[in-house]
Amino acid sequence: MSSVNVGLIGFGTIGSGVAKILIEDADLIENKLGRPINLKKIADLDIETPRPVQLPPGLLTREVKDVLGDPDIGIVIELVGGYEPARTFVLEALAAGKHVVTANKALLARHGREIFEAAAANHVDVLYEAAVAGAIPIIRGLKEGLTANRIDYLFGILNGTSNYILTKMTREGVEFAQALAEAQERGYAEADPTFDVEGVDTAHKLAILIGLAYGLQVDLDDIHVEGISGLDPIDIRFAEEFGYVIKLLAISSQDGGRIEARVHPTMLPADHLLSDVNGVFNAIHVHGHAAGDLLFYGRGAGRMPTAGAVVADVIELARAIRTGAAGRVPPMSWASTRGADLKPRPMSEVETTYYFRFSALDKPGVLSRISGVLGEHRISISAVIQKGREQAGAVPIVMLTHEARESDVRRALDELDRLDVVRGRTVVIRVEDRLR
Amino acid sequence: MSSVNVGLIGFGTIGSGVAKILIEDADLIENKLGRPINLKKIADLDIETPRPVQLPPGLLTREVKDVLGDPDIGIVIELVGGYEPARTFVLEALAAGKHVVTANKALLARHGREIFEAAAANHVDVLYEAAVAGAIPIIRGLKEGLTANRIDYLFGILNGTSNYILTKMTREGVEFAQALAEAQERGYAEADPTFDVEGVDTAHKLAILIGLAYGLQVDLDDIHVEGISGLDPIDIRFAEEFGYVIKLLAISSQDGGRIEARVHPTMLPADHLLSDVNGVFNAIHVHGHAAGDLLFYGRGAGRMPTAGAVVADVIELARAIRTGAAGRVPPMSWASTRGADLKPRPMSEVETTYYFRFSALDKPGVLSRISGVLGEHRISISAVIQKGREQAGAVPIVMLTHEARESDVRRALDELDRLDVVRGRTVVIRVEDRLR
Repeated sequence: MSSVNVGLIGFGTIGSGVAKILIEDADLIENKLGRPINLKKIADLDIETPRPVQLPPGLLTREVKDVLGDPDIGIVIELVGGYEPARTFVLEALAAGKHVVTANKALLARHGREIFEAAAANHVDVLYEAAVAGAIPIIRGLKEGLTANRIDYLFGILNGTSNYILTKMTREGVEFAQALAEAQERGYAEADPTFDVEGVDTAHKLAILIGLAYGLQVDLDDIHVEGISGLDPIDIRFAEEFGYVIKLLAISSQDGGRIEARVHPTMLPADHLLSDVNGVFNAIHVHGHAAGDLLFYGRGAGRMPTAGAVVADVIELARAIRTGAAGRVPPMSWASTRGADLKPRPMSEVETTYYFRFSALDKPGVLSRISGVLGEHRISISAVIQKGREQAGAVPIVMLTHEARESDVRRALDELDRLDVVRGRTVVIRVEDRLR
Repeated sequence: MSSVNVGLIGFGTIGSGVAKILIEDADLIENKLGRPINLKKIADLDIETPRPVQLPPGLLTREVKDVLGDPDIGIVIELVGGYEPARTFVLEALAAGKHVVTANKALLARHGREIFEAAAANHVDVLYEAAVAGAIPIIRGLKEGLTANRIDYLFGILNGTSNYILTKMTREGVEFAQALAEAQERGYAEADPTFDVEGVDTAHKLAILIGLAYGLQVDLDDIHVEGISGLDPIDIRFAEEFGYVIKLLAISSQDGGRIEARVHPTMLPADHLLSDVNGVFNAIHVHGHAAGDLLFYGRGAGRMPTAGAVVADVIELARAIRTGAAGRVPPMSWASTRGADLKPRPMSEVETTYYFRFSALDKPGVLSRISGVLGEHRISISAVIQKGREQAGAVPIVMLTHEARESDVRRALDELDRLDVVRGRTVVIRVEDRLR
């Protein structure tokens, strides 16, 4: 049986894992597919550094054209990462009539439309299971498993670095900086962790999930993004007293109107499964109108978990090549993208419940002044903790609210932060009470 | 755009949910697919009883030939259940060149090979996402998401009725009979619950998962099956003292040699996610050599969750019809089924850890006699609880073992149950320590 030839661009961590599976598990793959998959070329600027896989001679090249220009190669795996030259490589591969597998969430979040249009124009497919949540087959889940479901809401823990740091802060009560340093030591965080801890990576992945769930091409700028670098362990402890755990969540929902798209630290009920997702693990909670609650859990990063997802895409494409089934599923699962340009609801119009921590002077009447201002802005309080004696002249007053509107909260806090009895900035964390 | 015509056989709970989605969510489906899906006929012996869906006139028929004999119908949904006449209907549909969607685990577990061979011979597909774990897309997960993974082991909570009963026994300390009665009252258990509570339904589903994970057609008779009807709440409480929760698990694993295939009440570490799967929910924990740990969680039964999975299969087939991609993925994911006739390891050769509860006379030296007999059979003890004064002359002695072989355990217990200091039958529950 004729083999399917594959070219790989990018021989870093994931790339070496992909080569390892394609070579060491060739038997398994041939048994699944009915024919072999042949890794024909690997292009990388660095062909010197040893990788943890034994390659047959002649596979490695510095020239990307050895992959893109080889007419025998039907599937190109792009694992360069970032916007350029990854975008150019992918577009060139598509123009040459090659199918593409990529794990590049940044590329798809920013240039997805251009890439998918190029794929359609050339009658080839772009698969990207590894771009979101690593080993978890959530892309397939949304593209094919949940096609008959309207997605009411979707919550994701999509960044292992942030989740590792939050888990450490929660379990050990340490500050963000210390947890980050440990994550860096263990190789779970990069030297510049901004992308991960400030929620940018999570937003890229959310943009892709929204495309799949709602057929909506969302601009990254229209996703509200807050990271975890400003989190104080004291709020994790107060959350616990209220029965909550803090996670960095990607949130999207639709209740008939516009969709919500936001990334921020969120308080979740401690008994919800997402609250038990610890360390570098990822998870996605999806609520479908027919399915009800679903949860997908697994490793969101790492050489082999991600490589396994990449190779699954390669096998899917090889199966499509065998049966001539290119274009079987639209890249984002939607054949018709009516309303694809609709923007998500602005953050100011979002309604949710809130946690506030005020640093207030320990004087009579303070609580009444704070709750008075909140009330004037239609924000009602569901729980309060006020305890401890003053530290530097101020005590924490901690509150949970009933559902309120973000714009009202912003206005109320601006007013409260100007009160003479409130010191410093008030801490605001959103609470997710739909996860009961 | 021409529509895809679908016929439904079986208008019960799931069937009415399928009709509801196909009719009420026709817009969503057309947006995904790019063309409409048209539910053309529904065959059921009972066309009188009202169902919770508004049908256009002329859809219902008593005659199954109105579906099977209609050349315009390209996809047949079989929701009759059981072996016959479901088997005949499915084979007739395939012989007529129609694709089939079924949720019938019993049929596939027993007659899967015959049905899949008929599908291949007729160049059509049989999809069955709803046959295992209802709304959870685990079939697709194994067929396409994890194709690049060797499955080291797989644990499933696959029967909502049993899990509901176990959850109730665990939370409320009630006896099996009482928990079952409540499950029946709420419609979670049938009048004759044997299939569910004795593990038969779970074994059917495990047989299907094993086919997907290992390419192995396992005989139902080669799966070791124990149900939950004999469980005593006292063992649930002792499990808790050791840090375990008892679940009815489907277990399969492969460590290079033969696979294991068994269904029985199992003690799981209380902090494992599977231990938090409560009520009627299902979950599958899969460990892949590349992916590591994965968990899929959701509703395993019920009208709409199951119907959503059925309709997802219908959409996949409609996409395949559009692109001429029938036969794209082999029915069990394996193109080559070398070793498909290999039998699972016999239960007597399985090695695991065990929980024993002896009813022993409260006399000096009893513990030493019991542990002596165990030692003679190469069974070593890792923990013991002996407490409480005698009830009816006997006290419970509870033990956990290190890894031991089932045949040794059986021989040791036969010997122990004959000792004059041991009263009644010893309770044996297997412990799953791989789930750490």
